[in-house]
Amino acid sequence: MRNYTTQMEAARKGIITEQLKKVAEKERMDVAELLPLVASGKVVICANKNHTCLEPEGIGSMLRTKINVNLGVSRDCKDYDVEMKKVLESIRLGAHAIMDLSSHGDTIPFRRKLVSECPAMIGTVPIYDSVIHFQRDLAALTAKDFLDVIRLHAEDGVDFVTLHCGITRKTIDQIRTHKRKMNIVSRGGSLVFAWMCMTGNENPFYEFYDEILKICKEYDVTISLGDACRPGCLADGSDVCQIEELVRLGELTKRAWEQNVQVMVEGPGHLPMDQIEANMKIQQTLCMGAPFYVLGPIVTDIAPGYDHITAAIGGAIAAASGAAFLCYVTPAEHLALPNVEDVKQGIIASKIAAHAADIAKGVRGAREEDDRMADARRTLDWDAQWTRAIDPETAKMIREERKPEHEDTCSMCGKFCAVRSMNKALSGEYIDIL
Amino acid sequence: MRNYTTQMEAARKGIITEQLKKVAEKERMDVAELLPLVASGKVVICANKNHTCLEPEGIGSMLRTKINVNLGVSRDCKDYDVEMKKVLESIRLGAHAIMDLSSHGDTIPFRRKLVSECPAMIGTVPIYDSVIHFQRDLAALTAKDFLDVIRLHAEDGVDFVTLHCGITRKTIDQIRTHKRKMNIVSRGGSLVFAWMCMTGNENPFYEFYDEILKICKEYDVTISLGDACRPGCLADGSDVCQIEELVRLGELTKRAWEQNVQVMVEGPGHLPMDQIEANMKIQQTLCMGAPFYVLGPIVTDIAPGYDHITAAIGGAIAAASGAAFLCYVTPAEHLALPNVEDVKQGIIASKIAAHAADIAKGVRGAREEDDRMADARRTLDWDAQWTRAIDPETAKMIREERKPEHEDTCSMCGKFCAVRSMNKALSGEYIDIL
Repeated sequence: MRNYTTQMEAARKGIITEQLKKVAEKERMDVAELLPLVASGKVVICANKNHTCLEPEGIGSMLRTKINVNLGVSRDCKDYDVEMKKVLESIRLGAHAIMDLSSHGDTIPFRRKLVSECPAMIGTVPIYDSVIHFQRDLAALTAKDFLDVIRLHAEDGVDFVTLHCGITRKTIDQIRTHKRKMNIVSRGGSLVFAWMCMTGNENPFYEFYDEILKICKEYDVTISLGDACRPGCLADGSDVCQIEELVRLGELTKRAWEQNVQVMVEGPGHLPMDQIEANMKIQQTLCMGAPFYVLGPIVTDIAPGYDHITAAIGGAIAAASGAAFLCYVTPAEHLALPNVEDVKQGIIASKIAAHAADIAKGVRGAREEDDRMADARRTLDWDAQWTRAIDPETAKMIREERKPEHEDTCSMCGKFCAVRSMNKALSGEYIDIL
Repeated sequence: MRNYTTQMEAARKGIITEQLKKVAEKERMDVAELLPLVASGKVVICANKNHTCLEPEGIGSMLRTKINVNLGVSRDCKDYDVEMKKVLESIRLGAHAIMDLSSHGDTIPFRRKLVSECPAMIGTVPIYDSVIHFQRDLAALTAKDFLDVIRLHAEDGVDFVTLHCGITRKTIDQIRTHKRKMNIVSRGGSLVFAWMCMTGNENPFYEFYDEILKICKEYDVTISLGDACRPGCLADGSDVCQIEELVRLGELTKRAWEQNVQVMVEGPGHLPMDQIEANMKIQQTLCMGAPFYVLGPIVTDIAPGYDHITAAIGGAIAAASGAAFLCYVTPAEHLALPNVEDVKQGIIASKIAAHAADIAKGVRGAREEDDRMADARRTLDWDAQWTRAIDPETAKMIREERKPEHEDTCSMCGKFCAVRSMNKALSGEYIDIL
C-alpha cells in the first residue's frame, strides 16, 4: 500500500519512491538532488500507478532532454498493426514517451496494450477519444462526458494527458478580433473551441479543473497543459493569443501543484528562430519552472516534407534554452500521417536536437559520447564509430555502399584524407598523396 | 575595357558595375546601399572577369545567406558524368556556389566546363589540384608550383579559391603540444601542414601571400581564407589552435583589402551549440566584418548519416548570428562521397538553415514566403502550398501517397482537422467530427 498519491506528494513528504531512485540513477544524480526538483514541480516523473511495466524517466530542464512520439489510428489510417510497428520502432530507437492519438474505432484495446507492454511513458489527448468513445458528435457531448473519458484513461494507466484548459470563452473573441493567419492549429484546442462555439458553454477543462485534478491525483496522471493557441505559422508567433494562454497555464500550474498533481506545459509550434529563447524564458517565469514540452518549434513554414529538420533546428534551440521535452515532428508533418520510416526519421532528428541541446546546457554525460566518437575517428576505428553512432545501420550502409580504396582513409578523400595525412605527419612519416 | 580590377576597387572608386547592379536588385537594395558594403569588404561579389556566364550574387551578413555545394571527382569516385548530374541538380535547387574539389585525373576540362556553363559562383582549393596537375608527390612540389596552380585556376575563371594561408611553422608545435582530439581535419590544411613537416619550409601560402594577392587582383578572384585548424570534433571547438589562426586570418584580410582583393573567411566545423554565436561575433571583430563562410557547424559528433541535420542546426544558428555563407553538408559526411540524392538532401537542409536564419535576422523579403505559405494552409489551397514549398515534388509525393478521405482536411487528422474545425467555427457553421 503506497503512503502517497503522486510522485510530487511523495517527494514533498521526503519519500524516495522506486521511480525517483531509478530516474536519479539514469541522470547520474543523487536522490537528494532530484527529490527537491520533483517536490517543487521542476521535474515530473510521469508514472501512472497502473502502468506497472513503466521504465520511469524524469522530465525537467536540468535532466537529459526527452522525446515523444505521436502515433495512433485515425479514419485515414486505421491499421493497428502498423501502429504497433511504429511503437516497436520507437522503443528500439530510444523514444521516452509515446502519445496514443487514436481517433477512430475502438480505442480501448490499443491503449490497454500499450500500457501493459510498453516501458515508455504513455500519453493521450482525452478529448480526441471523447467523440469516439461515446460515438456522439462533438456538440452533443457534455462536460461530464469529457471528465469520464479522462477518468477512463487514468484507470487504463495513461501517464500523462494533454488537456486544453487554458482557453476560455474570452479566447473566442480574441481569436476573432486578433485575426491570426492560422487561428488555432492545435487539434484538441480546436475541438474545445468548436465545442464552446456550438454549446455556448465555458471550456469544461477550465471550468471543472478541480474535478480533473482529483482524478489525476488519484492515479498520478501528469497533466500536460495543452496550448490551444500555439502559433501555427511564423506570423502568429508570440502573439497575444499565445502569451495570454501561457499566463493562464501558469495559474493552472499553481493550482495543480497545490493538489500535488504533476504538470508539464505545452509550447510552440511555429516560431522564428529569434523568438525561441524568449519563449522559453517567459514560460519558465510564468510557469515557475514547470517542464516545457514543445512541438517543434518549426523555424520556417515553407519546408513541408522536411519538417523533421525545421523542428530539429527549433527544438535544439528550445531545449538549449530550457525546454525539457521535445515532441518529434516527422517529414510527413503538414502532409499526411507518418509511416514507419517517417517515424524513424522524426525520432532521429529529435534525438539529435535533444542531444545537441544537452551538450550545450551541460547535462551530465552528454558530451562524453561525442568525445568517444572523436577518438574513434582519429584512430580510424570504424567499428568503434558504428558503436557510437546514433543510427549505426544507416551510417554503416552509406560506407559499405561506397567503400574507399584505402581502408586507412577516413572516407571520401582517398589519399587526400586529412586524418591519414595528420597521423603520418605527427609520427614523422613520409606522406604519399599521389 | 574595364577601368577597375576587382569589384572592391570599383566600389571604392564609386563605379557601379553590372554585377553590383544585379546583386542590389536581387537583394532589394539600392546600389547606393550596397556600394559601401562592397567597398569596405563586408560584402563580396565573387566574379572572376573570365567567368562570363556568371549570374552574380553577393555574400555578406546583411544579404540573404548563400549556400555552397562541394563536388568533384576523386580516386574513389571518378565519374565526371555523375559530377555533372550533381551540378545540374545543384543549379535546379538554387545553390549559389559550387566548389570543384576534384583531386584525380585531368582536372582541367571539368573546371573549364563549369566556368563556361555554370551561372553559379565557382570555387576551388588549388592545393588539391597541385599534386594532380604536376603529377608529383606533395613533398616534391615547390612554392612556385602552388602559385602556378593558383594562376591557372584564376585564368580558368574560378571566382573564389580556398587558400590555407593562416597556419605557419608555429602551428606545427602548437598542434603537437596542444593535443587536439582531431588534430587538423581540413583537407587542404592537412596538406599544407604535411608539406611544411616534410620540407622544413614556411607555409608558401603565407610566405608568398603578396604574390597571391597580385594574381587574385588581376582576375578578381576572391580569396576564401581557409581555416586549417577548424575543429573536427566538439572537443576541439574554439580552442587556441582555431582562434590563433583566426587572428592571423584577420591580419591577412586587412592585407588583401589594402590591395583591393576581396576576401571571405572560412570557419567551423564542429562546435557545441553554445559556442556558435561567440565564434561568429569574434570572427566579425577579428576580421572586421569580412563575410564568414562556415562548414556546418556540426553540433554533435555522433550522428554520421544525418550530418545534414546536425549542420542545419549549427548553420541556422551561425547564419542568424552573422555567418554569410553556408557550405552544405550531406548525409554522407564522415562516411563517403555524396551521391546525387545526398547532394539534394544536403542542399535542402542548407537552404532551410539559411532561410530560417534570414527570417531571424530580418533579411528583406525572407518572411514573406512563409506568410504566403500560411495563407495557403489556412485556406487549404494545396496548389498554392506546392508553389510555396522548398521542394514541391517531395511534399506533393507524400500527400499523394496517402491521400486523406476528405479533401477539406489539412492532412492527417480526418474530420479532426483543426484547420477545418476552425474555419467552420469562425463562420458559425456546425462542426461535425464523427
